[in-house]
Amino acid sequence: MTHFEEDTAVRRVEGGWSAELDPRWNVGENPNGGYLLAVVLRALVEETGRPDPVTVTAHYLSPPAAGEVHVRTEIVKPGRTFVTATASMLQGGREKVRVLGAFTDLASRQGPTRISARPPDIPPPEECESLIELTRRAGRKIPEVMNRFDLRLPPDSPWGRPGEGDPFEITGWIRFRDGEEPGALSAPVFADAFPPTILGAVAGGWVPTIELTVHLRGRPAPGWLLGTFQTRVLVDGLLEEDGELWDSEGRPIALSRQLAMVLGA
Amino acid sequence: MTHFEEDTAVRRVEGGWSAELDPRWNVGENPNGGYLLAVVLRALVEETGRPDPVTVTAHYLSPPAAGEVHVRTEIVKPGRTFVTATASMLQGGREKVRVLGAFTDLASRQGPTRISARPPDIPPPEECESLIELTRRAGRKIPEVMNRFDLRLPPDSPWGRPGEGDPFEITGWIRFRDGEEPGALSAPVFADAFPPTILGAVAGGWVPTIELTVHLRGRPAPGWLLGTFQTRVLVDGLLEEDGELWDSEGRPIALSRQLAMVLGA
Repeated sequence: MTHFEEDTAVRRVEGGWSAELDPRWNVGENPNGGYLLAVVLRALVEETGRPDPVTVTAHYLSPPAAGEVHVRTEIVKPGRTFVTATASMLQGGREKVRVLGAFTDLASRQGPTRISARPPDIPPPEECESLIELTRRAGRKIPEVMNRFDLRLPPDSPWGRPGEGDPFEITGWIRFRDGEEPGALSAPVFADAFPPTILGAVAGGWVPTIELTVHLRGRPAPGWLLGTFQTRVLVDGLLEEDGELWDSEGRPIALSRQLAMVLGA
Repeated sequence: MTHFEEDTAVRRVEGGWSAELDPRWNVGENPNGGYLLAVVLRALVEETGRPDPVTVTAHYLSPPAAGEVHVRTEIVKPGRTFVTATASMLQGGREKVRVLGAFTDLASRQGPTRISARPPDIPPPEECESLIELTRRAGRKIPEVMNRFDLRLPPDSPWGRPGEGDPFEITGWIRFRDGEEPGALSAPVFADAFPPTILGAVAGGWVPTIELTVHLRGRPAPGWLLGTFQTRVLVDGLLEEDGELWDSEGRPIALSRQLAMVLGA
């Protein structure tokens, strides 16, 4: 079993689902938000009987610690095409994350296709630099979750040194470090796996997510994903982070947006 | 009282809130989605005691008709800065809309500001064309909700005739037709008031919203709002519609994204 598979496993218990949050996905003392969402999605996919979360929104209420959590699920609306459902992740009886989403089977969809978006143009992974290496060289601490991914930035990445007029942005290649291929449930994890767009520009700051919404637009092909994240509107410490994930066949497989907040800068 | 104020009024009743959906906001037989969200937000702002929905997500389950609805609200997490809450809109005992959001007081926020986004550059409202006039001239039916707004498109608007490689987009000026100034609760309505980006390109189609998320980034100044909406990824009939709203002082006051679906094209 791969880390992602093992660490997002849920089992049915009285009144919902049980899961064990593994500290391998921690940033400091708390699990990464994309990982928390993936655990909840695992329960919701079971509950709804639909494999693909086409649109899911997570509100992060207070950070859980690694260890046991309970996931309470509720079908909001069963439907032929889409099943809408909500879930709460609880620890020690307190709610930590609330999720609302719509689930479907993307493989059975039919309709017009036209894509005007284009994947970002960066050098291939083997010509890019490992984020772990870059972080080590900068003398910064490597959050444990970073070890779950092979994340590579282009040599000329503007991340961490944006100019005055530029958007804050980070673009790079990503895959699981243990060889697990990307799937419908890991897309939300990749959408929250890059360091914050504004981390390099807000010294000493911490950028917790208030809300994260991910639209899954296709199941990713095996191989590297190309991710690009951008912040254009930072106002009074509140910011959006808009993401796109592209698969190895050049298809856009997820669009994400989160609302985050600068703390302690 | 203005239409928006009057038609989104809620009153506390046993087990929640009651509201009367006015057919003035209909598209065909059913109320516009942004209007439904505004009614729910009115109840949630009362319930949370916070005036500004910084991030709200609505899932549209099945369209209600004009008439009485019940809104059931629940505080998910009270907090000093943000209050997270959820709500259901019901009609005839059936749930029609589910909303999840975080509420705050934007006026009391402090933190860094840096905006790299720029408002779209179009001619002033008096040099633009009324959508109602354009629709009438095209011999198309004018949905009742369109009469609530003064919506103007630039003379060279690409909307309705996009080229092969272009994104689907629509940009224009908008304000309430009865003179009500824009506010924290009407921003979500403006975010869903423009015709669908792809309407001109998908003949005979209908584009219902599955999910709409709006980030309120500032309270709008009085006057016109400038809105721009874009679709870049239409895959198997599913599409995102990304919106920005700018106020008369050139500030970005809301970012929106919806997942919608092409039907009957």
